[in-house]
Amino acid sequence: MNIKLKKDERIDDLEYKDLKIIQNKNGFCFGIDAVLLSDFAKNIKKNSIVMDLGTGTGIIPILLCGKTELDKIIGVEIQEEVYDMASRSIKLNNLNERFEVINENIKNLINIYEKNSFDVVVTNPPYKKQNTGVINEEEKKLISRHEILADLEDFISISNKLLKDKGEFYMIHRPERIVDIFSLMRKYKIEPKEIRFVFSNEENPPKMVLIRGVKNGGQYLKFRENLYIYKKDGSYTEEILKIYNK
Amino acid sequence: MNIKLKKDERIDDLEYKDLKIIQNKNGFCFGIDAVLLSDFAKNIKKNSIVMDLGTGTGIIPILLCGKTELDKIIGVEIQEEVYDMASRSIKLNNLNERFEVINENIKNLINIYEKNSFDVVVTNPPYKKQNTGVINEEEKKLISRHEILADLEDFISISNKLLKDKGEFYMIHRPERIVDIFSLMRKYKIEPKEIRFVFSNEENPPKMVLIRGVKNGGQYLKFRENLYIYKKDGSYTEEILKIYNK
Repeated sequence: MNIKLKKDERIDDLEYKDLKIIQNKNGFCFGIDAVLLSDFAKNIKKNSIVMDLGTGTGIIPILLCGKTELDKIIGVEIQEEVYDMASRSIKLNNLNERFEVINENIKNLINIYEKNSFDVVVTNPPYKKQNTGVINEEEKKLISRHEILADLEDFISISNKLLKDKGEFYMIHRPERIVDIFSLMRKYKIEPKEIRFVFSNEENPPKMVLIRGVKNGGQYLKFRENLYIYKKDGSYTEEILKIYNK
Repeated sequence: MNIKLKKDERIDDLEYKDLKIIQNKNGFCFGIDAVLLSDFAKNIKKNSIVMDLGTGTGIIPILLCGKTELDKIIGVEIQEEVYDMASRSIKLNNLNERFEVINENIKNLINIYEKNSFDVVVTNPPYKKQNTGVINEEEKKLISRHEILADLEDFISISNKLLKDKGEFYMIHRPERIVDIFSLMRKYKIEPKEIRFVFSNEENPPKMVLIRGVKNGGQYLKFRENLYIYKKDGSYTEEILKIYNK
């Protein structure tokens, strides 16, 4: 396999089924969020057609191709440089048949794909509202972290349009946004069905939240047990080690 | 003090500032929910005018009269027998100046009290939707537990009408209802500002959720650290012992 790396790029080994990913050491590198979301979505059914909104370097599709028997996953990434890395990671992993990446704004998707045609949408969207938080990052990190080109309502309304009836929606986000998340999911008829909070440890409030919704699903929210990242001694919990295949 | 007890009634000592409560041993006796909500609402400001929607035997107003310097709290209870117990508990505790109970459906309150006239609303409403769960209880417990005479939307819409601008709303409820709760709070302009989940222990999903909202408040939800009831050995946690003044 002859994959060219550009300046400041490197290949990272995902230490799972020989999967690898190209990242730029000065760009937005994937974090635990993407790993946890991929684990949370690991029950995606065989032969599913899946959409990843805001795929970045393609970490979630790459992991899901390893963890599930999905038929096809399309990743959408607006930043050309990042899209380009994902394209090369597809070749690097020989995933051309199952993972396709497109360079688009998610707002254009409905002009490209048929309505109600996806079994599953996964997304690790920008967490922060525009004009909030520290904004001194370079543009590519900014777009990945802040709702500059698309906001939470866009992510959820587009998911509604893309999903089949009873299609599944998987998202990771920040706990402080759950009022927005639940209100918007109800508005766009993706009923929250399962929730799991992620904590650094047992002493502090949650850092992240995993949510599974179902388009036109019945109203009942199931709480999963908490997910803790660290034990009291600062080492990883058994569950995190298992998720990372250690 | 000469307070008459009716058949099956008893006086329970709250073991806090010499407060007591009359309960019926065959009726709906207060649980940890009311104690946790009173603790969560303990920062109610001096001289506040407070409404307790669905006060039952008056446990929350009695505890809040002990824990805060509120000026006046009105408890509303639709069940006459239960209202009557609360009336006698007011006398028993010599709280006539600060705690008043009325025998009404909460839906009538807006015909009785001026709009936008309360600083705070507290409520421990029925948790279960009508026609869900095991329904083989006698009627008085049923009305306390199920949304038969008023549902969550009634509790929240009435709170909006009663509260002053920036007035505070405190509620305890079941976690599986938070999608309903947040959607309705947004609908009726009581913005969720603070949330705290209550767990039996560290292994299981949350059992209860405490929520503070502010009428016409800005959008930002603060997560409090988890509240655990039991330690691993089955004994109460330090925090619970403190809340119970042990």
